[in-house]
Amino acid sequence: MVDAGAPPFDFDLRQTLGENLRRLRAERDWSQEDLAFECQLHRTFVAHVERGKRNISLDNIAKLASALGVPAYRLLVPPAD
Amino acid sequence: MVDAGAPPFDFDLRQTLGENLRRLRAERDWSQEDLAFECQLHRTFVAHVERGKRNISLDNIAKLASALGVPAYRLLVPPAD
Repeated sequence: MVDAGAPPFDFDLRQTLGENLRRLRAERDWSQEDLAFECQLHRTFVAHVERGKRNISLDNIAKLASALGVPAYRLLVPPAD
Repeated sequence: MVDAGAPPFDFDLRQTLGENLRRLRAERDWSQEDLAFECQLHRTFVAHVERGKRNISLDNIAKLASALGVPAYRLLVPPAD
């Protein structure tokens, strides 16, 4: 056990998820509305997640991944560049 | 766009996260309380996440991953076996 204090925190994780969503959605030529429809989520929710504005839940990550046809962990892998 | 209906849903994602947490925690010889302390989360919260009982948020996934010193996506990769 180390000292408590603030744990290191991955502030980029929301951005990583947002970028991956946007890229995978674009690859499918889907609008945000298309993706939202496939997941039964709201378009503004999808828009906010893509911009890193929402603290999305695991179940909704699963819904997005299923709609996009990718394993959920792929949504959290930092882009290569 | 395909028919709406219920999207395919990865019901196992909570279980995958729970199993990964438990394994990584055990590798470090940490109790649930140790991990909770490192993340500044509650021990019962960690216990529930390990059992797939909680719909954890992305920010809390990031905290757990940081405390365990692994990239967050690793927590969602299905175990090999």
